Amino acid sequence: MLIHSASQLLTLQGGPQRGPDLGTLGLIENGAVLVRDGEIAAIGQTPTLLAAHPDEPRLDASGSVVLPGLVDPHTHLVWAGDRAAEFEMKMAGAHYLDILAAGGGILSTVRASRAASPEALLEQTRARARRMFAHGTTTVEAKTGYGLETESEQKLLQTLLALDAEGPLEIVPTFLGAHAVAPEYRTDPQGYTDLICSEMLPSVLAWWHSQPALAGRPLPFVDVFCENQAFDLKQSKQILTKAKELGFPLKIHADEFDNLGGTSLGVELGAASADHLVKTSAADIAALGRSETVAVSLPCTPFGLAEREYTPARAILEAGGILAVATDCNPGTAWNESMQFVIALACRALKLTPAQAIAAATINAAHAIRRADRVGSLEPGKQADLLILDVPDYRQLGYRFGTNLVRSVVKRGRVFAVNGETVQSA
Amino acid sequence: MLIHSASQLLTLQGGPQRGPDLGTLGLIENGAVLVRDGEIAAIGQTPTLLAAHPDEPRLDASGSVVLPGLVDPHTHLVWAGDRAAEFEMKMAGAHYLDILAAGGGILSTVRASRAASPEALLEQTRARARRMFAHGTTTVEAKTGYGLETESEQKLLQTLLALDAEGPLEIVPTFLGAHAVAPEYRTDPQGYTDLICSEMLPSVLAWWHSQPALAGRPLPFVDVFCENQAFDLKQSKQILTKAKELGFPLKIHADEFDNLGGTSLGVELGAASADHLVKTSAADIAALGRSETVAVSLPCTPFGLAEREYTPARAILEAGGILAVATDCNPGTAWNESMQFVIALACRALKLTPAQAIAAATINAAHAIRRADRVGSLEPGKQADLLILDVPDYRQLGYRFGTNLVRSVVKRGRVFAVNGETVQSA
Repeated sequence: MLIHSASQLLTLQGGPQRGPDLGTLGLIENGAVLVRDGEIAAIGQTPTLLAAHPDEPRLDASGSVVLPGLVDPHTHLVWAGDRAAEFEMKMAGAHYLDILAAGGGILSTVRASRAASPEALLEQTRARARRMFAHGTTTVEAKTGYGLETESEQKLLQTLLALDAEGPLEIVPTFLGAHAVAPEYRTDPQGYTDLICSEMLPSVLAWWHSQPALAGRPLPFVDVFCENQAFDLKQSKQILTKAKELGFPLKIHADEFDNLGGTSLGVELGAASADHLVKTSAADIAALGRSETVAVSLPCTPFGLAEREYTPARAILEAGGILAVATDCNPGTAWNESMQFVIALACRALKLTPAQAIAAATINAAHAIRRADRVGSLEPGKQADLLILDVPDYRQLGYRFGTNLVRSVVKRGRVFAVNGETVQSA
Repeated sequence: MLIHSASQLLTLQGGPQRGPDLGTLGLIENGAVLVRDGEIAAIGQTPTLLAAHPDEPRLDASGSVVLPGLVDPHTHLVWAGDRAAEFEMKMAGAHYLDILAAGGGILSTVRASRAASPEALLEQTRARARRMFAHGTTTVEAKTGYGLETESEQKLLQTLLALDAEGPLEIVPTFLGAHAVAPEYRTDPQGYTDLICSEMLPSVLAWWHSQPALAGRPLPFVDVFCENQAFDLKQSKQILTKAKELGFPLKIHADEFDNLGGTSLGVELGAASADHLVKTSAADIAALGRSETVAVSLPCTPFGLAEREYTPARAILEAGGILAVATDCNPGTAWNESMQFVIALACRALKLTPAQAIAAATINAAHAIRRADRVGSLEPGKQADLLILDVPDYRQLGYRFGTNLVRSVVKRGRVFAVNGETVQSA
């Protein structure tokens, strides 16, 4: 298939973009992409590719931007229930303790997720996965973390793998047993930390290796929420160190509300990414600037909480860091499936240009989940994951907000139509 | 047609909601709506209506919220071109004067809109109208204002009326010749003010009365941008007073960047609404609290501009004012078609509960365009304009953001399907 006549083709070629290089789009006017067997076979200008492949089936992208499928490198995709009532309480001025007293907070999602049947969990999660895909996300990282006991965490992980097998959205799983201290260990966080290390991580590893369908597939990431009222720096280090010994690649939630040193810990341990990064210090920023640990900013979280402080993205870029953005899609602070909205918010809250935000949502996001060899840019040999937008200029991403500008999503060469502005008379 | 089994039916009955009464939803669990001849014939609980109308064709709304179609009471829907390049400059740190020097700003949209053929203008505007409708807006106020000369303003007005005639989105037009000082009068704003009063307003009135298709229809609103670098208080008063003499209903843009006294002027002249209201003083707020002039907050504009100051909505409510919200959809500061995003943003930036934001986007928005007798609530005798959401709890509006929660839009009894999460394999 030859996708041709794109007003602008953004290749994002050349690998992850560090520091001030962020925003290098590799823009080709009147661009074309040759897709064969689910992969990209060639990239170039339309006249050249049309001449070289005259008999190829064609897909006309006139008046459109074509770009890599968006990669969402930080989500809590799998949960049951919702916390709409808690949101209403918060907007009416309730304090955190009021919400906890009313049975709210993360543990309410843990209760609902533990109680949900695998079928119910799959159905609720599938609806979000489809919404993400319809908004142009072709690869998503998704964390467990609403089980907080070996068996429930396993149920969440298997739900993610089942959804990935269904497609078309590709799911890269992360084990986040260390999302919060399990309610059974409320007074003994160290006991829960030890349980993660002694039982949960080895159990995930053993299960993974026991599954023929997962043979050859990279191990899931292991992540930890390094924060007051969650896991302190020492506990975070214990969990990540154990995970690393077992061969898991690492991620860390750091500096969302307080700076405990999680970012520098992530860099020290070679984590693929450190995520949130709001209360990040100058020393942490300098550490990021020298590392391959991607700084994943989650602007929907302060937005969702009506807070005013965001990731110091420009300082991270000035230090030479590799910046990515993600939805953080979760039921407590940011139920948003759209990376397009993240791009629009990142322009305003992180002071990125549209080009920078697009690179942060594609090639750099792919690097944050260590899949930049397969997705995040349009280059021969990579997966044919791309979007055809309903607009002729890439800068309309960011400039416009609140709706869906995707016309078609192509995943591994399969074309799916999306209709952001269309209604059908029933 | 009987729409039945809604998890929650929100009637919003009882008229515009003043001050602390905002947020009265009229919620009926397991609700049903009987639709006949494009109007609402009855409202009630499902068992009652099913028993009373056993042979009526049925539409199952199980698991859904049913609520009035959203009303967007402030938009600049009709324009040609875009200002994506200007957005990129702004995000890269360019100042207002740089943008003007690069040919940007409102006058660039005026140039494009004047130059556009009526067909091109209609096509570009229709795409936005469809996107609004797909996101649940069933009635929209839309302003001229990118012509700034008699003939071009007339072209914009006729485009709006042509789109309204096409349907399904219902368009309530506003004449905003006083959007900016026309470039031909750059050094003579008073001359342009006089032209509006002596030529443009009488011309619109004469044209309107010459059209048989418009017989019996309310006159368009006349609006003025009362702001530094636009029209000062005296000029604003001159224009609105003339419009009032001619019989036009009034609106005013006030206090977006500076407080010139526009809000109190609007109240004094009995304007249907005063809009923007960021730099609004305590005296203005008190005046709103005693009046029928609706305070229309446009939170997408500070959001779009990455500013931090929003309408003092809670103070307006405490003073007893009638608060509505709108998109302000326009190419310079806020290209967003979704009132669902406005609701989500209003919860966070204006500190409204979901229930308050919904009332501000339905019955109060209808009052801001003086159509609360026909739309904005579900009551027998009113238009059958309603939404069926893909969620069972109204609080998911506001709580969730970035995507489209509408499953179906019903306009004057006709059902249109929308698919926020669906993609089709092509």
